[in-house]
Amino acid sequence: MQALIRPSAIALSIGLSLGCGGALAQDAAPAADVSQSSQAAPKYQSIAGADSPDKVLHVDVLLSGDGNLSYQVTRNGHTVIEPSRLGLILANAPKLDRYFSYDTSATTSHDDTWELPWGERRVVKNHYTELRVDVVQKKWQDRRMTVVFRIYDDGIGFRYEFPDQPQLKKLEIMDELTEFAVADTATAWWNVAGEWNREEYVYQKTPLKEVAEAQSPMTLKTDKGLYISFHEAALVDYAAYWLRRVDGQRLKTRLAPSALGAPVVREAPFPTPWRTIQITDSAAKLYNSSDLILNLNEPNKLGDVSWVKPYKYVGIWWQMHLNTGTWEYGPRHAANNENTKKHMDFAAKNGFRGVLVEGWNKGWEDWFARGDDFSFTQSYPDFDLPALSAYGLKKGVHLVGHHETSGNVAVYEPQMEDGFKLYAKYGVDSVKTGYVADAGGAKVKAPDGSIRFAWNDSQEMVRHYVLNVRTAAKYKIAINTHEPIKDTGLRRTYPNWVSREGQRGMEYNAWGDPQNPPEHEANLIFTRMLTGPMDFTPGILSLQGQGKPLISTQAKQLALYVVLYSPIQMAADLPENYAKYPKPFQFIKDVPVDWEQSIMLNGEVGDFATIARKDRASDNWYVGAVTDEQARDVEVPLSFLDANRSYTAQIYRDGPNAGMTGDARFDIVIESKPVTAGETLKIRLAPGGGMAIRLVAGKAKK
Amino acid sequence: MQALIRPSAIALSIGLSLGCGGALAQDAAPAADVSQSSQAAPKYQSIAGADSPDKVLHVDVLLSGDGNLSYQVTRNGHTVIEPSRLGLILANAPKLDRYFSYDTSATTSHDDTWELPWGERRVVKNHYTELRVDVVQKKWQDRRMTVVFRIYDDGIGFRYEFPDQPQLKKLEIMDELTEFAVADTATAWWNVAGEWNREEYVYQKTPLKEVAEAQSPMTLKTDKGLYISFHEAALVDYAAYWLRRVDGQRLKTRLAPSALGAPVVREAPFPTPWRTIQITDSAAKLYNSSDLILNLNEPNKLGDVSWVKPYKYVGIWWQMHLNTGTWEYGPRHAANNENTKKHMDFAAKNGFRGVLVEGWNKGWEDWFARGDDFSFTQSYPDFDLPALSAYGLKKGVHLVGHHETSGNVAVYEPQMEDGFKLYAKYGVDSVKTGYVADAGGAKVKAPDGSIRFAWNDSQEMVRHYVLNVRTAAKYKIAINTHEPIKDTGLRRTYPNWVSREGQRGMEYNAWGDPQNPPEHEANLIFTRMLTGPMDFTPGILSLQGQGKPLISTQAKQLALYVVLYSPIQMAADLPENYAKYPKPFQFIKDVPVDWEQSIMLNGEVGDFATIARKDRASDNWYVGAVTDEQARDVEVPLSFLDANRSYTAQIYRDGPNAGMTGDARFDIVIESKPVTAGETLKIRLAPGGGMAIRLVAGKAKK
Repeated sequence: MQALIRPSAIALSIGLSLGCGGALAQDAAPAADVSQSSQAAPKYQSIAGADSPDKVLHVDVLLSGDGNLSYQVTRNGHTVIEPSRLGLILANAPKLDRYFSYDTSATTSHDDTWELPWGERRVVKNHYTELRVDVVQKKWQDRRMTVVFRIYDDGIGFRYEFPDQPQLKKLEIMDELTEFAVADTATAWWNVAGEWNREEYVYQKTPLKEVAEAQSPMTLKTDKGLYISFHEAALVDYAAYWLRRVDGQRLKTRLAPSALGAPVVREAPFPTPWRTIQITDSAAKLYNSSDLILNLNEPNKLGDVSWVKPYKYVGIWWQMHLNTGTWEYGPRHAANNENTKKHMDFAAKNGFRGVLVEGWNKGWEDWFARGDDFSFTQSYPDFDLPALSAYGLKKGVHLVGHHETSGNVAVYEPQMEDGFKLYAKYGVDSVKTGYVADAGGAKVKAPDGSIRFAWNDSQEMVRHYVLNVRTAAKYKIAINTHEPIKDTGLRRTYPNWVSREGQRGMEYNAWGDPQNPPEHEANLIFTRMLTGPMDFTPGILSLQGQGKPLISTQAKQLALYVVLYSPIQMAADLPENYAKYPKPFQFIKDVPVDWEQSIMLNGEVGDFATIARKDRASDNWYVGAVTDEQARDVEVPLSFLDANRSYTAQIYRDGPNAGMTGDARFDIVIESKPVTAGETLKIRLAPGGGMAIRLVAGKAKK
Repeated sequence: MQALIRPSAIALSIGLSLGCGGALAQDAAPAADVSQSSQAAPKYQSIAGADSPDKVLHVDVLLSGDGNLSYQVTRNGHTVIEPSRLGLILANAPKLDRYFSYDTSATTSHDDTWELPWGERRVVKNHYTELRVDVVQKKWQDRRMTVVFRIYDDGIGFRYEFPDQPQLKKLEIMDELTEFAVADTATAWWNVAGEWNREEYVYQKTPLKEVAEAQSPMTLKTDKGLYISFHEAALVDYAAYWLRRVDGQRLKTRLAPSALGAPVVREAPFPTPWRTIQITDSAAKLYNSSDLILNLNEPNKLGDVSWVKPYKYVGIWWQMHLNTGTWEYGPRHAANNENTKKHMDFAAKNGFRGVLVEGWNKGWEDWFARGDDFSFTQSYPDFDLPALSAYGLKKGVHLVGHHETSGNVAVYEPQMEDGFKLYAKYGVDSVKTGYVADAGGAKVKAPDGSIRFAWNDSQEMVRHYVLNVRTAAKYKIAINTHEPIKDTGLRRTYPNWVSREGQRGMEYNAWGDPQNPPEHEANLIFTRMLTGPMDFTPGILSLQGQGKPLISTQAKQLALYVVLYSPIQMAADLPENYAKYPKPFQFIKDVPVDWEQSIMLNGEVGDFATIARKDRASDNWYVGAVTDEQARDVEVPLSFLDANRSYTAQIYRDGPNAGMTGDARFDIVIESKPVTAGETLKIRLAPGGGMAIRLVAGKAKK
């Protein structure tokens, strides 16, 4: 009758080992007892612990029962993450779980800053305490493993490191036992994982205890007012993880499966990716502190990356989603010489550096589920790559290349370098890639030469994405990945990985069932966007999809250029549509894409967000705000402005009659007024609305 | 702000295919539109449907959007299972999902009965409607698949069948897309899956929407008063599935991973195991109708199985769990000649056919996590197998063999046949096997000769369990598997697979943390026991574990022999303890283990159950009842008795002061009185209590 508490696997193994007289508790290094009170909880012994620099967060590493390893996290003394398992299950050796004993540990402090070549901000602070804990499994020929924690004031990262040791040269990892046991009752914003081969969902908001299996990142709000985000950093040569809820509020990492065998196969020594937990006391801080992921990645490995250019672009793209043009060759083929020149002329006239052209290359016939026929060097007959590239460059407009693969890496990889070489030859310095993989996964070549269908999150695909970006770098080409592997901050290491999709983008407003709801962007900002740049392709001022009106105001379309960060931003609508709306279009022409600083002023997950960003190339600031289906008044305290200057605020806001349906969507007020650092603007957002402000700096007073 | 509905993957693919003008809806055979009303729901077209024999259940097979296959189930017109996906994801070919079109379908009726050589009842009725639906994927070289439904009045089974076709000779199945979308709000009784390598948990009771990933079977009660159980039948040469909740009340099968590659690798033609859904309007009917699983299995493949003997047994077992003896050789080694003879004498004196001896063979040193050293033919020096077996047989007592493997199949399989041969030589006709596999899974030998750690639910282990039972059959040996693969009714096909564990058994009362709670058996009866016999090893009349008192009355220990079905039942306590309680022990001596008929009279999942069973060898009936932590009065309507006879009821019930702690646990009333079919007994069960009745038939009146 009563609901029962599941004894943890730890408790089970204790019971069993007692049953056989094999308890190894004596292996645990004696230390502070931090046992929990729950029915089945075993005794935990802290074997090591450390504080964040300002002592906000504290991590304890624990041994329990018969040598099970776990950790817990407190914030200002309050338990945020209850004792949570650490370990892995192997296919080729006994599991790295239980029978652990303490060997050594070490704590070090780190505090410095570094610069992003492009980004939300120029200078990134990296201040943390590192705790290294070495454990050993005496039962298994003294196998050793190190768990490394990096403890920041606003979050932690931890990873496993496997030394070079004869007892464990090769690891075939079947699964990770890593857990996140959330202490306080929490609400979760999440997407299902493992079902669909890309990360394009409408977000769900449920109690954490109703989450099933989720993608990372997942964002929580606890009943104590804390905001938590689970993700990973530096995902290299390893499978991505999904968050599987075990029961209650206990989450476990699950490694994406492999079609080749164990999800991960690696030779030691190597570290796993970092498992990250951001913990803040406001939603805005969750965004403002999101450098955790970047800090846990390796520094730039490409050297001089001045050839990586942030830019805005237009393209031959939206018309295919409106189904007024086709990717494949035929009577309605959009990627033709005339249409490309038309877009280049429009770009030059309006100051856009790039023109994306999709469907220029052979092989789009039945591309959707196969991708077997793609050529990455041969154009359709109505597309003259050399001539068009030259035509654009004369006007300062760069063709943006396109490699749609349908996830067919087996067909793409042998052509990949030639594809980049061709583009580089004709001055194309950035490429959008695509991995629509609806045949049953991406297609990869197995060691035995056979073709395998693989999860986008699998180790083999993780390897491909890095290979793609590194190969492009050889040709000084920047990559914007669509249907990508999740972003884990590798743009720090490979700064030519400028952006990616990885969310339900604008095209769903053209044909999605359902379309993106009004809260969609307010969800993305606090979830997907914590991981890095999003090529969302905003700016549909016509507010019209394929027979479906967008659920958005015109002002919100402008706001997206500020609130949704990407160093490359598309003006996604058709040129003829921008011609109809010259006044709001002015903001899209003005807004930059590279920032000296970014500050979220206020916001709530899934409700609204107000973000201010300072242009890297000038003293101007930009502010954007979006709301969900609720109208609301947002406050914009201008304290971030230079008190020594006056500014002109060019404001694009929802009009008095603005709303998210019908003509009300086009009710926009554009006004200009002087402002100073002292004041606070109050601006009303309509249901499904938003606002954008350009703050033009006057001369410094002295 | 508002909680959002995830568009189903179906809806996503519709949207996407519209986006690329590739919708295949025209492939769907026109038929009745049974579209759902939810936000993102696509249009479903019924391409085939059929009723159960009495038209209680109805199944529709549906096509939607771009050729996605699904099904739905209604009961008396009420939707129980909403449209739920069908399909599979492959590693070596495009997925068996979408692009389906209708080919043909056929409906047939089946009605017969068959006999169980041993079981809960002798005669099993098998009355169903079969619906076969052939679908084709024109996009993939006309690949064909058949979905077969068997529709009973109290449940359905369905499976996929893959024909011999050149386009798909070999299937490497990465995952199944099979869904169970529960229409009405439901409560679930479940165990976590995938974490721990065997099925030994305290059951959880939560809203269905709080289930994470569960083992099958899982039992539901809906707010409409319907009882549902999800499981599978005839699991052969395939991976077991786990129930992963996708979101809301939508469950999806997930195949247990393989350490060798894809979870399932098979050559066509072959069928998958049956996916089963029992649906009844009372908890008792869920148990009374549980022949669904057996009916979906293949008939007996062993021919004459008169050598398979139901029996009761005692053994050298509980004392190891009390830690007063050891499995391994040493000063406290329990499996010695003297102790074995003592148990054989006790068995002979009290009418038990079997004496189980664990720890008789070499290799138990560090067995718990390794099992590398086990011999299945060599005894420890203090155990004389030939002499002891002969000693017992003179008294009509049979040694019960024991093969503990620690899940180390790589070590066991090469010795397995020799082990059975040895036992057969000395007249041992039943063997208990064990698969404690705590090193990180079972150990199996890969085709390349390497040793792999495998999930107990993996295809390779499923193969092993069947090989084990079939090999034993060659030597006329019955198998009782502990830490087994889940029971899917294969006892029909291999009647020497007499019982198995597969639940949190009595030993957890010796050392478990926590011990089994009072409701444990009332959970098992409506979940695990729906799948088949359980070797729970009841009868601990001493009510004492390893320093832990059992949370049970003495009367409940007797009740377990009736309510928990197994054709082999252990009297698990120590002989000296039975000597202390001769009166209650009498019931254990009297109760049979093979039944002509079984009827659950009343019960509620997790609360209580009252079951009546008729002895196969006499006209006597037996009744047992157990409750959870609540005291309650159970009614026993005796209408099942022969109205033409009088009976003497020997009643073992909780005394007036009985309770689940302290001395109150021993308060038992044993009384005898005449009863007839007309009357209804009312018997009070104490908290944590139970009762057992032996109904001795008098002569027929004429």
